[in-house]
Order: sequence, then C-alpha cells, then structure tokens
Amino acid sequence: MSNTLNLTKELISRKSVTPKDEGCQDLLIEQLEPIGFVAEKLNFGEVENIWLRKGTEAPVFCFAGHTDVVPTGPLESWDSDPFSAEIRDGKLFGRGTADMKGSIAAFTVACQRFVADYPNHKGSIAYLITSDEEGPATDGTVKVIKTLEERNEKIDWCLVGEPSSTNEVGDVIKNGRRGSLGCWLQINGKQGHVAYPHLAENPIHLTAPMLEELTAMEWDKGNDFFPPTTFQVSNLNSGTGVTNVIPGTLKMIFNFRFSTEITPEELQQRVEALLDKHKLNYEIKWVLSGMPFLTAEGNLVDAAVSAIKEVRGIDTELSTSGGTSDGRFIAPTGAQVLELGPTNATIHQINECVGEDELEQLENIYYAMLKKLLA
Amino acid sequence: MSNTLNLTKELISRKSVTPKDEGCQDLLIEQLEPIGFVAEKLNFGEVENIWLRKGTEAPVFCFAGHTDVVPTGPLESWDSDPFSAEIRDGKLFGRGTADMKGSIAAFTVACQRFVADYPNHKGSIAYLITSDEEGPATDGTVKVIKTLEERNEKIDWCLVGEPSSTNEVGDVIKNGRRGSLGCWLQINGKQGHVAYPHLAENPIHLTAPMLEELTAMEWDKGNDFFPPTTFQVSNLNSGTGVTNVIPGTLKMIFNFRFSTEITPEELQQRVEALLDKHKLNYEIKWVLSGMPFLTAEGNLVDAAVSAIKEVRGIDTELSTSGGTSDGRFIAPTGAQVLELGPTNATIHQINECVGEDELEQLENIYYAMLKKLLA
Repeated sequence: MSNTLNLTKELISRKSVTPKDEGCQDLLIEQLEPIGFVAEKLNFGEVENIWLRKGTEAPVFCFAGHTDVVPTGPLESWDSDPFSAEIRDGKLFGRGTADMKGSIAAFTVACQRFVADYPNHKGSIAYLITSDEEGPATDGTVKVIKTLEERNEKIDWCLVGEPSSTNEVGDVIKNGRRGSLGCWLQINGKQGHVAYPHLAENPIHLTAPMLEELTAMEWDKGNDFFPPTTFQVSNLNSGTGVTNVIPGTLKMIFNFRFSTEITPEELQQRVEALLDKHKLNYEIKWVLSGMPFLTAEGNLVDAAVSAIKEVRGIDTELSTSGGTSDGRFIAPTGAQVLELGPTNATIHQINECVGEDELEQLENIYYAMLKKLLA
Repeated sequence: MSNTLNLTKELISRKSVTPKDEGCQDLLIEQLEPIGFVAEKLNFGEVENIWLRKGTEAPVFCFAGHTDVVPTGPLESWDSDPFSAEIRDGKLFGRGTADMKGSIAAFTVACQRFVADYPNHKGSIAYLITSDEEGPATDGTVKVIKTLEERNEKIDWCLVGEPSSTNEVGDVIKNGRRGSLGCWLQINGKQGHVAYPHLAENPIHLTAPMLEELTAMEWDKGNDFFPPTTFQVSNLNSGTGVTNVIPGTLKMIFNFRFSTEITPEELQQRVEALLDKHKLNYEIKWVLSGMPFLTAEGNLVDAAVSAIKEVRGIDTELSTSGGTSDGRFIAPTGAQVLELGPTNATIHQINECVGEDELEQLENIYYAMLKKLLA
C-alpha cells in the first residue's frame, strides 16, 4: 500500500466532522516536523487551524485545505463504515476521501519525496489547514490569513486541494471562483380578510410583477474566465397558514453568483431600483460572502498545466464555475490561487470515494509542481 | 330592562364557544314551546342543532342562526367579562352580542309578541339553529337542510340573523353572497445547488411569470347585484430554509370570491389554461365552499325593506358583499334568503358589543316582517 493511501486512511479514521479536527492536524505535524517544517497552531473559538512552514525565504508555495468533513448522513445507507476507509474495486470509500483528506495526504507525501530529493530547494513550502471549511468558515482560513497579513507574511502561490476534477484527475482546475452575494428581502403589505381585499394589500400580489422582472433579468454576459452572473431565489414565504387571511408580509432569500463583469454594489443598486420602480415597501439586508477572484495566468497556472500534462498526458481546463471555497479568503492577499484535487462526483454524498490511482496521480502532480516551482 | 335584552344576556352567559351550545338551544325551546312551537333536536357528531316549527301550513317563514361564538381571545384585553354581558354607555358588551345571540333574542321576543297579537296567523314560523357556524360548518345547517329536504319539508322565506348592518340597524341587508372557490396548487421543479442552476429547475422562477399574469387578470365585471369576482393568494411557500439550495417545489393556496357572472368550472379552466400556457408541471386541488346565491326580489325582500322604513325611517341597501354565511346552504333549496341583523363593526373582536337600542329596533323590524308576511 502506498504512503499516500496509508496516510489518507489514517486521516479518514479520525472522525473530524465539522468543526472538529480530532487529531488530523497533529498527524500532519508528526509527518512534517521531521523534514524541517515549523508548526504553529492558530486556534480560534472551537476551530483548530495550523500554519506549517519549511524555510524562511520567498517565494512561498502554500498548500491550503481543511481537515473537517461534512456529516455522514444515515450510517445504514453506507456500504462500509465511513470512517474505516475500506478499499473495494480499486476505490477508497469514506467520508473525506475526496473532500479533502486524500489531497492532503497526497501533498504531504509529495513534500516528503521532494524534500528528500531536493534538500536545498529554494523558497518555502507552507500548509494552511483549518477545521472549519464545511461550517460557517468564520474562525478558519479567514482568521489565519488575517494573522499572516498582520505580521506581513506572504503567500506567493497557493494550491487549494479541493476536488476540482470532473471525470479524471487533472481534467479541470479552478483558477478562480465567482463572487457570492446574498439578500434577505421583506415586502410589506397589509393583512386582511380574503373576502375584503380592498381593505388589505396583498404582498404576494404586490411582489408578482417585480419578481417576474427580477427572474428574467440579464445581469451580465460573463467574460473569457467567468460564466454570466446567475440569480436564484432559494426561499419565498408568505401566508399565515390560514386560507381566508391575506398575509401582511412576504419574505424572500436570494443569491447572486457573480462574475468580474459586475460589482456587488451594482447588483444591489439594480435590485433596489427595481423594488423602487414597483413602488414596494420593503426591508432589505445584503450579505457579501465572497468577491470573485481569478488567477488568469502566471507561474502557478503554468506549473499545474504542465505537471498535469506530464503525469497524466492530458490538457486541463481552467474553470471558475461551482461553489465558493476558501480560495476567496486567500486571493485578496495577492497570492496566485488554484484549486486542484481529485474527482468531485461523490463529495458530500453517501459512499464518498476516490480512486486509489487518483491519489497516486495527485501525489505525482503535486510533486511535479513543487519541482517546477521550487527545485 | 326589555325582554330582548334579558334574553340576550341569558344567552351570552352560556359559554358556547364553537362548536358548543351550552344550553342555548334548550333556552330557546323553553321560550317557544309555550307558544306552540314543536322542537326537534338534530344533532350530528358533537354539533347540536334544533329545528323548531309552529304550524303545519305553508308558507314557512324561518329564522336561521347559530348559538356558537368565536373564542374570546385574551380575557385580560376585555374591559368586562365577555360572558357576563355588561351594559356601559348604552351598549351591551359580550362575546356573541352582535354575532349573533342578540338577533336570536330579538326574533324570539318578536315571535312571542306576534303570536300573542295574531294567534291565528297564516303559514308557519320556524327556527333553524346550529352550534357550528363559526367552525367547520359541516355538521350544522347543511345537515339540517339535508334532513328537511329528505322529508320534503320546505322553507319559503329564510331570515338569517347575521349582523348585516354597517352604521345603524337596517342600513344594509344582504340578499345574497358571492361564491367561494379555493385552490391548493403545487408547482414542481427540480432541487439543486444555487451555484449550479443549470442542473436544477427553480419552481419560484418558473412560477413568477404565471403569477404575474394570474394576479393581474380580470375575471368578470360583476353585475347589478354582485361586485366583480376577486382573486387572492393567501399562502405561497417555497424553499428549504437553507440559503444555498434551489427548492424542488412551490406551494400556493388561493381563493376566488365569485359573482354569478362566472362559474367555478370557468374559473378552474382559466387557471389551468394559464398553468398549461406557461408549461408548468403542477398538481392541483380545488375546493368549492359555496356557490353564489341571490334573492333579487320577492315578498321577503319587500317585507324587509318596508319594515325597516317603517321602524327606522331609512332606506336600506341590498348587498352581496362580505364573507360566506349559512345562507349558502339554504338558498339552493329554492328558499328566498335574506340576512338582517345588528351592526357588525365589532364582531369577532375584543369588546364585541351591540347598542341596547339596536336590539329593540331589531325586535320591532322582525315583528313588522312577521306581520307583513303571516298576519
């Protein structure tokens, strides 16, 4: 059994359901201190984070990731214990195999090999690991980055080990993510009896024409790196539950995933202008969860693309689609940021798994990148 | 203190919160058997009903009403005990004073006076009283009417004692009511992640253009007797509560109050045609709570209009507005149906009340109607 597979299994056996770490980070320290890494625990609230660094020179190549996993869901639905990492048909099954203990293990073994092969490499290698990526993500990466910025410690290249691949390892890497802007909206009407609508103001009826326009709107056309901005209403609720009462208010939650072609301020202005145009009485709260970020080109992208070509013989696709990741906290520091990890078809699902060969391929890709950037 | 006021107070003191009767109907039997009424209890489930009749000949003039009242709401909000019927500033306060123990008492005293004055009156006088008008109304008037129809017993004129008046007794009588058609609609989409809208079908977005058309639609223009048909959405719900999930379904409850210019079938067809036009995948359930009914003219309307003119010196307005009443169950038998009772400003509210003089005026109007129709 390969070292990467072994280390993945050891990490899986620690039941680190978010925001718990359960000793995963200590295991990494055990692996990395002997080859020259210095570990620093940066815990906030109940969240455990570590910053590990080997070397003091620039450039800094940092591996970013998380040891927490999402809950298993009903245990009886799994074909094997989600925390025992069973191998069947060439696949390793378990919670966190793909998201993202497999890539942590692969990167760690790649580091051990690289340091053995190139003991006098240039620059520094670092790890930024949190136990709060799957949860609220308020005491994790964002706070570690703040700590680093306060002491002027800089990451040049950041490889996030999130499962970026679609059909096979390396077919897709994420070189950016869209921004995410959420909105909580309340439309105020006037409660009344359905038999006397002239005495009431039905917020559902007041909202309908505005909602029709809002859902039909084009926000931008995207660009070479980003798909067009999308708008989705996730929750819409109005009504007392009783059938003969016109409700007094309507509540709506919606979300934008936005490209670099539009700003959160523009989105807010356009929505509020529409509400005003329809003469609605409303209360509104906006929450910006992340600005879009992009690493269009540079040494990190080049190293990833050529390492994938070398190890796997395939051309990779650069993509900015999908959900948010902790990359949103790292990119604003000026670092180049990429996400490259195993296939994501089973993440957050029952019987999450990763191919045995995927872990070995990842280890080799990460090794090749270290070599290109720091050898 | 007048007999009507006394009898109203005795009825109020019985805490007959729907569907309870608490001896109200026995009290009416005590009042009416001595003057020749024959009482028949027609109880169904936990609901008490009585049918009282004096005489065997046609025509039958029936007083219809209910002994149940709506709950009091918070007792501490009342200025006096809602079941002790206190008089202050010329008003009688208590739950059921206006809706509708006052008119039951007024009609009963009017009957006693009428029978004393005209012992050999023509036709019959009847009472149809239920303890389930404020509740589901499934074991009340509708079942009594069924019993009467099965034995071919017919009501010619029905006076429902509901509080029809707006500013003073007799200013408005209801000579019909709109129909009521309810609908439970579910729009089916496909659940997904807000970051991947192309893999989902958001039922809120799918519904928006249809809802905009539905709320803007004109259903009919009404006619001389009915205002235009109204449409109101009472409940609209979609969403998992989570902000990053596109919901799979949307649920909506709406209600038509419809005139005689349109049928429930036409309303259903127009709604379903709109749903089909928007290519929506839906499940739908319709519930018809009542057909519209109308007593446009006839002896009963004439008697009411002239009795009000005689007693109060005012012209009355015929109206079909407002909520449903038990008249909807009686009208389909072919009876002429009118609603005439006290002012309705405080019904179902804290400190429900009726003017002392209102009760006396009602007693005199009811007496005058009995005289016009049966003397």
